[in-house]
Amino acid sequence: MPPTSLSAVLDHVDAGLPAALERLMGLLRIPSVSTDPAYADHCAAAADWLVADLRSLGIRAESRPTGGHPAVVGHGDGAGPRLLFYGHYDVQPVDPLDLWDRPPFEPEIQDTPRGRVIRGRGASDDKGQLMTFVEACRAWKAVHGALPCAVSFLIEGEEECGSPSLVPFMRANADELRADLALVCDTSMIAPGRPSIASQLRGMMNEEFTITGPRIDLHSGYYGGPALNPLREMARIVASFHDEDTGRVAVEGFYEGVQDVPAGQLQQWKTCGFDEAAYLGSVGLSCAHGEKGYSTLEQQWARPTLEVNGMWGGYTGAGSKTVIPSQAHCKLTCRLVGEMDPDRVRKRLRAHVEARLSPDARVEWSTRVDGSRAAVMNTRRPEFAAASRALEQEWGREAALIGMGGSIPVAGHFRSVLGMDAMLIGFANDDDAIHSPNEKYDLESFHKGTRSWVRILHELGSRP
Amino acid sequence: MPPTSLSAVLDHVDAGLPAALERLMGLLRIPSVSTDPAYADHCAAAADWLVADLRSLGIRAESRPTGGHPAVVGHGDGAGPRLLFYGHYDVQPVDPLDLWDRPPFEPEIQDTPRGRVIRGRGASDDKGQLMTFVEACRAWKAVHGALPCAVSFLIEGEEECGSPSLVPFMRANADELRADLALVCDTSMIAPGRPSIASQLRGMMNEEFTITGPRIDLHSGYYGGPALNPLREMARIVASFHDEDTGRVAVEGFYEGVQDVPAGQLQQWKTCGFDEAAYLGSVGLSCAHGEKGYSTLEQQWARPTLEVNGMWGGYTGAGSKTVIPSQAHCKLTCRLVGEMDPDRVRKRLRAHVEARLSPDARVEWSTRVDGSRAAVMNTRRPEFAAASRALEQEWGREAALIGMGGSIPVAGHFRSVLGMDAMLIGFANDDDAIHSPNEKYDLESFHKGTRSWVRILHELGSRP
Repeated sequence: MPPTSLSAVLDHVDAGLPAALERLMGLLRIPSVSTDPAYADHCAAAADWLVADLRSLGIRAESRPTGGHPAVVGHGDGAGPRLLFYGHYDVQPVDPLDLWDRPPFEPEIQDTPRGRVIRGRGASDDKGQLMTFVEACRAWKAVHGALPCAVSFLIEGEEECGSPSLVPFMRANADELRADLALVCDTSMIAPGRPSIASQLRGMMNEEFTITGPRIDLHSGYYGGPALNPLREMARIVASFHDEDTGRVAVEGFYEGVQDVPAGQLQQWKTCGFDEAAYLGSVGLSCAHGEKGYSTLEQQWARPTLEVNGMWGGYTGAGSKTVIPSQAHCKLTCRLVGEMDPDRVRKRLRAHVEARLSPDARVEWSTRVDGSRAAVMNTRRPEFAAASRALEQEWGREAALIGMGGSIPVAGHFRSVLGMDAMLIGFANDDDAIHSPNEKYDLESFHKGTRSWVRILHELGSRP
Repeated sequence: MPPTSLSAVLDHVDAGLPAALERLMGLLRIPSVSTDPAYADHCAAAADWLVADLRSLGIRAESRPTGGHPAVVGHGDGAGPRLLFYGHYDVQPVDPLDLWDRPPFEPEIQDTPRGRVIRGRGASDDKGQLMTFVEACRAWKAVHGALPCAVSFLIEGEEECGSPSLVPFMRANADELRADLALVCDTSMIAPGRPSIASQLRGMMNEEFTITGPRIDLHSGYYGGPALNPLREMARIVASFHDEDTGRVAVEGFYEGVQDVPAGQLQQWKTCGFDEAAYLGSVGLSCAHGEKGYSTLEQQWARPTLEVNGMWGGYTGAGSKTVIPSQAHCKLTCRLVGEMDPDRVRKRLRAHVEARLSPDARVEWSTRVDGSRAAVMNTRRPEFAAASRALEQEWGREAALIGMGGSIPVAGHFRSVLGMDAMLIGFANDDDAIHSPNEKYDLESFHKGTRSWVRILHELGSRP
C-alpha cells in the first residue's frame, strides 16, 4: 500500500463530510427507543437502515432476530487482523419532552458558542459514534476498494434497556462473531480535544427492597410512640450503609476484590486534563463527597459505590398527614470494580439489612435484579499502542488511558462469552447530555472521530 | 318535662336508626378531603349539606367563609345551659387507594365477624361521630319540639390539615361562639363497650423539609462516588432523630416541659381495661417500639413523639434507574405533652437538622406549618360527673377517664381563645382504621353514641 494511501483516505473523509452528516441525520430521524415496546417497529427500521447502509459499502450485512429487537451483523472481506466493531442503534427515551428545545427526532446542525453540534436524541449515544466507524470504512473502501483489516459488525438494539438478548445472541453465534479484537465506540473523551481510550469500566449491581412494619397504615396519634415506623427503620438502615467518617461503604465484605490503582496509572490520571473543579461545579458541588483520601477520578473510575437511587414511603402529597405507614421502599445500585462479584455483593448487602431489622420489621427483596462485573482492558496488547499512535496523530495530543465510572457490560461479555479482548475508543464529551434533553454530538467529534478510525484501521492493518 | 320524656326520645332514636344511617351515607359520599386543594368544592358541599340538615331540625345554621374551607355555625333556641358542639366535616386523604376493598366514598353497611359496621372514609373520623350528636338533637326535637339545652354548633372543615383558619374564626366570632361548655365528639373508647371521656390530649407540631444536593439529577455512572446524594443525607439525618438504645427523641431540648404522670393516674390507666397485646397485635406488632421503660398507654398518652409521616426522593417507578437525585423530601409530625411549646420544638428540630447538613447540602423548610399545645381537661366540672352517669346508664359500665394520643387542638383553643372548658366524648374504636384504608365506624357506636348524647343532654339540661 503506497504511503499516500492514508492521506488520500483522510482527504476523502473531509470532502465527504456533508454527505456523511446527511446519512447520520437519516438514522437520527428514526425514533428507535428500545425500552418502550411502542417503538419496536422503529427499532426494526433502524436496524434495516444500517443493513442497507453497510451493504452500500460492500459489507455482507443482515438484520438478525433476537429475543428482543433485532441485531445487525455484517462481515467485510479484506485481509489483515479480524476486528469486530460493536455499537448500538437504540436510544434512550426522550422524556421530559418539554425540556427539549426542538423535537428530539428532528435532528439539525447548530452553531453554538462552543462550536458546531449535531442536536438530537442518539446524536452522541450511540448513533453518531457508531457512524464515525462506518464512515471510516466507507472512505477506505471508496479510495482503495478494500479495508485494511477484516472488519465485522455487531450492532445491537437493546443497549439502553440492559441488553437482555445480547449474551444469548453472542452464545448462539459465537463462531461467527469471534475475532482478534473487539472495537467499541460508545465512550467519551476525558477532556474536549483529548483523545481517550477507556481502560477500565465499573460493573453494576442493582437491588430493591421493601420494609414492612405495621400490618396497615396507622394514625400517629393513636400509635405514635409504641408503633414501629418503617420510614425510621429505612432511614436507620440506609444510613448504616456508609461510614460517615471515612465515606466508605460499611457493608461487611463489600470491598472484597477491590484493587488499588497502580501508581503509574494514578499519575497519568492526574495529568490527563480532567478539571475536577469544573466537573463538580457544573452540577453545583464544591468538593468530592465520596471516600476520603481518593480523588474525584479515583472515586469515579476505580472505587465501588453504593448509591440509593430512590427511597419512598408514607404520605407524599400536598399538606400534612399524621400517618405511620405500613411500608417503606428503597432502590439502589452498586458500581463495582476489580474482581468484585455482583452476586456476592448482593448477598452481603441483604445480610447487612436483615441483620439490622427491628423486631416486627420484615424485608422483601426484588426479584428483578441483575449485575455485571467490572471490566479491565488488556492494554498490553499492541493494538492499544497502535491506536494511541493513530489518535495522537489525529488530535495532536497524547491519547489518555482513562477509566469509566459507568458500566458497559458488553466489554465483559466479549471476554466471558467470546474470549476476546475489547478496545473502547469514543469521541463523546461530558456535556453531550446523553440520556438527557437536548442531546448533542460535537461536529468535531464526528469529523475527527471518523478520521481517527481511518488512522486506527491503517495502524492495525499495517501491523506486520 | 315528664319522667318518661327520656325513654320516649331513646325509643325515637331506635325507630329512626335506618333513616339516620341514610343521612350519614349522604354525608359520607362527599369526598371532603381538606388537605388537597383539588377537593375544595367538595369541602364546601359537605358544609352546605350540614347547613341544610341542621336547618331541617330547626337550627339557624350557616356556612361561613374562613381563610380556608367554610365553617358551619348553627344556633338552636332552647333553655338550660348553653353548649357549643364541635365536630369536623373534612376527612383524611384516601391513599393508598389500592388497599381499599371498595371505593372510599361509596359507603355501605357491612356485616363483619365483630358486628355491623359503616365502611367508608370519614365513617368514624369525624362524620359518623358528629352525626351521633346531630341525630340526638333531632330525636329530642321530634319528640319534645325542643332541646333540653341551648345548643350551638361549630363544625369546621380543616381539622385534618391543622385547622389553620379555626383560631382566627373563633377570635372574629368569640361573642357568638362563647358558651358554658364545649362538647366534642372526635375521640375513641378505651375498649369496645367501655364508655370513655378524654381527660388529656397530646399537642402537635408538623414540619416538612427538602434537602437539595446537586443542582440537577445526576447519572450514577458519571457522578456515583464524588456526588453528594441527598437521599443518603436524608436517611442519615432522619436516623439521627432518635437514640436507638433508649428510643428517646435525640433532638436537644425536645423534652423541655414534659412532666411525669402522677402515680394515681398511672394506676387508673393500668386498670381501665386497655388490652395492650390486642391493641398492638391487631396491627401486626408484638411489642411496643417506643421509649424504653414506658407502657404502651404512657407512650401514647403521656410521652411526646417525633414521627416521620412521609419520605421520598429519586426514582420510584418500575425497574431501575441509575440516578443520583437532586432532592430528597421529608414530612414529620411531633406529638407534644405537658407544657411543650410547638414553636420551641420547631426551632430545636430545625437547628438539629441544619447542624447535621453536609457541605453542598441545603435545606428548605415548609411555610405551611402549625402547632398546638397539649390539653388537660377540667374534669372537676359537674358536667363530667353528669356525663359519666349518662354514659354508664347507656353502656352499663362505668365511664373511664382516659388520655388521648391524638391531638384535638380545638380543646386548647376553646380555653385560650374563648375561655371555655371542653368535654370530649367519643365512641370510636381502636380498630376503626381512621386515616387508613377501609375506615369503618361500628353500628353500635353510631346507635348507642346517639343514645348517649340523648342521655347526656338530658342530664345536663335537667341539672338545677
